[in-house]
Amino acid sequence: MLCETNKELDELVEEARKYTKDGQVADYIPALGKADPYDLSIAINYPDGRCVSAGDVQKRFTLQSTSKVISLALVLMDRGYDEVFEHVGMEPTGDPFNSIAKLEKMTPAKPLNPMINAGALVVTHMIKGNSVQERFDRLLSFIQQLANDASIGFSEEIAQSELETADLNRALCYFLKQHNRLNEEVEDLLNLYTKQCAIEMNCLHLARIGMVFAMDGMDPITSKQLMPKEVARICKTFMVTCGMYNASGEFAIKVGIPAKSGVAGGIMGAVPGKFGIGIFGPALDDKGNSIAGMKLLEMLSNDYQLSMF
Amino acid sequence: MLCETNKELDELVEEARKYTKDGQVADYIPALGKADPYDLSIAINYPDGRCVSAGDVQKRFTLQSTSKVISLALVLMDRGYDEVFEHVGMEPTGDPFNSIAKLEKMTPAKPLNPMINAGALVVTHMIKGNSVQERFDRLLSFIQQLANDASIGFSEEIAQSELETADLNRALCYFLKQHNRLNEEVEDLLNLYTKQCAIEMNCLHLARIGMVFAMDGMDPITSKQLMPKEVARICKTFMVTCGMYNASGEFAIKVGIPAKSGVAGGIMGAVPGKFGIGIFGPALDDKGNSIAGMKLLEMLSNDYQLSMF
Amino acid sequence: MLCETNKELDELVEEARKYTKDGQVADYIPALGKADPYDLSIAINYPDGRCVSAGDVQKRFTLQSTSKVISLALVLMDRGYDEVFEHVGMEPTGDPFNSIAKLEKMTPAKPLNPMINAGALVVTHMIKGNSVQERFDRLLSFIQQLANDASIGFSEEIAQSELETADLNRALCYFLKQHNRLNEEVEDLLNLYTKQCAIEMNCLHLARIGMVFAMDGMDPITSKQLMPKEVARICKTFMVTCGMYNASGEFAIKVGIPAKSGVAGGIMGAVPGKFGIGIFGPALDDKGNSIAGMKLLEMLSNDYQLSMF
Amino acid sequence: MLCETNKELDELVEEARKYTKDGQVADYIPALGKADPYDLSIAINYPDGRCVSAGDVQKRFTLQSTSKVISLALVLMDRGYDEVFEHVGMEPTGDPFNSIAKLEKMTPAKPLNPMINAGALVVTHMIKGNSVQERFDRLLSFIQQLANDASIGFSEEIAQSELETADLNRALCYFLKQHNRLNEEVEDLLNLYTKQCAIEMNCLHLARIGMVFAMDGMDPITSKQLMPKEVARICKTFMVTCGMYNASGEFAIKVGIPAKSGVAGGIMGAVPGKFGIGIFGPALDDKGNSIAGMKLLEMLSNDYQLSMF
Repeated sequence: MLCETNKELDELVEEARKYTKDGQVADYIPALGKADPYDLSIAINYPDGRCVSAGDVQKRFTLQSTSKVISLALVLMDRGYDEVFEHVGMEPTGDPFNSIAKLEKMTPAKPLNPMINAGALVVTHMIKGNSVQERFDRLLSFIQQLANDASIGFSEEIAQSELETADLNRALCYFLKQHNRLNEEVEDLLNLYTKQCAIEMNCLHLARIGMVFAMDGMDPITSKQLMPKEVARICKTFMVTCGMYNASGEFAIKVGIPAKSGVAGGIMGAVPGKFGIGIFGPALDDKGNSIAGMKLLEMLSNDYQLSMF
Repeated sequence: MLCETNKELDELVEEARKYTKDGQVADYIPALGKADPYDLSIAINYPDGRCVSAGDVQKRFTLQSTSKVISLALVLMDRGYDEVFEHVGMEPTGDPFNSIAKLEKMTPAKPLNPMINAGALVVTHMIKGNSVQERFDRLLSFIQQLANDASIGFSEEIAQSELETADLNRALCYFLKQHNRLNEEVEDLLNLYTKQCAIEMNCLHLARIGMVFAMDGMDPITSKQLMPKEVARICKTFMVTCGMYNASGEFAIKVGIPAKSGVAGGIMGAVPGKFGIGIFGPALDDKGNSIAGMKLLEMLSNDYQLSMF
Repeated sequence: MLCETNKELDELVEEARKYTKDGQVADYIPALGKADPYDLSIAINYPDGRCVSAGDVQKRFTLQSTSKVISLALVLMDRGYDEVFEHVGMEPTGDPFNSIAKLEKMTPAKPLNPMINAGALVVTHMIKGNSVQERFDRLLSFIQQLANDASIGFSEEIAQSELETADLNRALCYFLKQHNRLNEEVEDLLNLYTKQCAIEMNCLHLARIGMVFAMDGMDPITSKQLMPKEVARICKTFMVTCGMYNASGEFAIKVGIPAKSGVAGGIMGAVPGKFGIGIFGPALDDKGNSIAGMKLLEMLSNDYQLSMF
Repeated sequence: MLCETNKELDELVEEARKYTKDGQVADYIPALGKADPYDLSIAINYPDGRCVSAGDVQKRFTLQSTSKVISLALVLMDRGYDEVFEHVGMEPTGDPFNSIAKLEKMTPAKPLNPMINAGALVVTHMIKGNSVQERFDRLLSFIQQLANDASIGFSEEIAQSELETADLNRALCYFLKQHNRLNEEVEDLLNLYTKQCAIEMNCLHLARIGMVFAMDGMDPITSKQLMPKEVARICKTFMVTCGMYNASGEFAIKVGIPAKSGVAGGIMGAVPGKFGIGIFGPALDDKGNSIAGMKLLEMLSNDYQLSMF
């Protein structure tokens, strides 16, 4: 994919990069800890095919939580609105993404939304297919279509590492299983989920996927409707209400666009009707969002009046 | 204000009115309990001055929580962004609007957002003025401007009733005071807050105010900028992330417009750049939102593609 | 073991048996659900070797949570006070025995006491031995000594059933593992723990074990010191502060003796310096304690002034 | 009252006094902050009239939370077991003494026990009398009887100071009022409660009161039964399960006697059937208990085998 560098964007990136020093790369698995904390890149993809970028946009990173919004889209297509929301709620939580406490308080136990880990696990559980492999292949293929790049794969090293350090997600799974929210083997689900999180791309891809969400599920360049408009709408809504962990409210005020972050440092943004954004900046703030990426989006939103509100 | 009845809207209201039988009017103070549960009315106010309506749009009701978004606007103008958000947060909670538990868990204690009671009390505390009377007059005058009707007043009976049954709000206030979030007498603040909640209008007024928010703080009919664009934007953002109590997430998915409800049955909606909506339907669902009003907005949003997302 | 039936005790049992109709047998695993809800038996074992009983004292039942206090005794001998309480706390919780929420709130994560499931799992984890088999054999052998009956074994059926339905305990284990409280395979620990819970005896045995605790770890009949006095003291203290799930406070007020219950219907009591009590009554109250057993102990305590307080 | 100094006790006090440097005097009201952190004194009162002591036993301090167990005794006499426990529970909480969160979770809202502030406020509310003055006089008179000293009074300065800084207790009261647990004016109750907390005595008095509890409500020196045996038993039970804030479980393990502490540094102990203990040591640990007083009791319990368990 061609993408022109852009001087204005370059200046914003250099300004935002200063904030990387206040953040830290995720270190709960060694492979993530190897990222360069000073990295920061951005791509913006327009419906007419234009693309502008700044920073080293070829660097690949894993999707991590950013994948949650894509698996949700797939599952909404696989299962429909009613079945999905029978098993996962629609409300922001105000708690950390890996919290189990609120799940315990609810009767029946139902994850509050698909963006926290408990909810994302339930969503991934609902991906259709006869085997973990088949379900993963369907998800990966969907992502390749969204990014318009069949070369996208996943990092076996990171998937394996995450599987070995996934005890908190195991705890969530067994808790959900006890409450009849899962009916597959926990290790199968975790195998699928960690592969999903380990899907690798660069910020050009992420910007392209963001554009598809921004354009109501249509890829205007290929003229393919990759997901129904309603599915894109639901996903964008969750990106606003709970896309940035428990800083989502603040992000909505300060930036005001649908976005979803991941702990590898990626942020996918979708400015409705306008363009998609892909950011990579692995130094994270204390909520788990790319610290310089957040700042960059705030500057962009202020300068170009991107807020939907 | 002139407002034409509209046949399509009439039909939607009659369809939505069926849901009133599943709701209940608020009864924690006698005056609210006297409302007719079958009432349902709506007005839509366009920037060009057109207004369409259905139902008995002259019925007056008290703002209750709907006032929270207006006092927030005033306080943002009075104090500025930084001072306001030093004392109140920006995150949705996932807890009921009157909960104290999360406040206790946070260090320092800071209400999670301005739409829950704890946050709204802190906001009202920040309204500038030399006395309760002066602060209330400033708020009322601001609301009269927004609604373009100087005859708007408040219900002394309801204010008085609420003051007498405000023990949970008293508890919140003293808790906040202990944590240095309030430095006035609790009874003074409650006096001001209950008057604010008891401000009375009809759904025509509410639609007009919604239109001002929708039009970035400008009243296009009088051409007055009644609040800065940024203030309107922040308010609309909170209306999306936490405007409908702990059904805000679901409302964002199903309807997708900035809206704020109150337990007297009012809902103010602001469709950015398009129009304002005022609804009155006193039968509430179990979260405290107008049950038929919610349904009506859902039908409107589906039929006219109103979702921002 | 010989044990005389006793007319007074018989009358109390018949009186208490009436309360069985308000309780329910545990049904989360089929084998427990087969118990006869009207069963109620009691044995009292005195240091001089006398034993009085009422009801069908030969019926066997599994220890379930009653085992927690015995594994704690063994682990205190295995590891010493300091090591044990580095990993598990000493405070009652006020929450249900299987709750995970408070664990999440604490930093570092440390189960509040050894009588809730999270704490009991950490305790069982600390039983010394080179294999699950060896650790289980050591525990079983200790229990056989305490009950003075080498024929005591465990129910393979119930252990197996519990292993299959142990998802909530799995969740707790993985949560603990994430927080470095466990360093063995979760399935190994659960295998050991479910066997521990499935150890089977009758209320004569339970009364004998209770007597050993009552007599400061000494079996006065065999004159063997089966555990140090301090260990017996610590165990009895936990039996008072957290032995009866989240009805422990009420039980301390109403009965006032160290006691530990299990969901199969067993209660072991230890009246310091006086005697041991074993009760079997499988109909449970809503907290998980034998409903008639609790009543029987209350009547006994009132009639014979057994409260320590 | 005569009380002999005791060399052994002196040595223990000097040993324990070293721990005062790790504690801090309460400073939430100025008057408490004036205490000398190095103070430590103890008196032990035997049923035969003997008294041994160490340290400056004439220093007076306010009861603070220690008063909770005495007001409970009075209210149990005033209202009876059933009425009292209809309004306050019997379970330890595992939360800080001033927490409101668990109160919010319970339906109906009922303080978990009489030793946390919410529960103590409900208990004081139940003291009979036609006015705050009369209720306070009844409590003070009861305390004078228990301590056998009619000169005991209260500190107006501290009561007044506490009233002015009682916003958290105000919050608890209004929360309880909202849930129909209180039907008097909050300021009246707080007036009574802060006076109760400000009752002043020295550790000789406290030891004498502890002895009355230890001797089942009988003052063996005057041969007066000052409260029914059952009342004394209930109070001692709460002292064990929740007397030392959220260190009660640890205290039961390490010391094992009924005791109640207060933030002015007092601890009242009652060794059943044996003697009463009064301690004053104003340097507190992070849970709010006298840090050196706790250590002193631990040493005494180990040396003289005082644990009930």
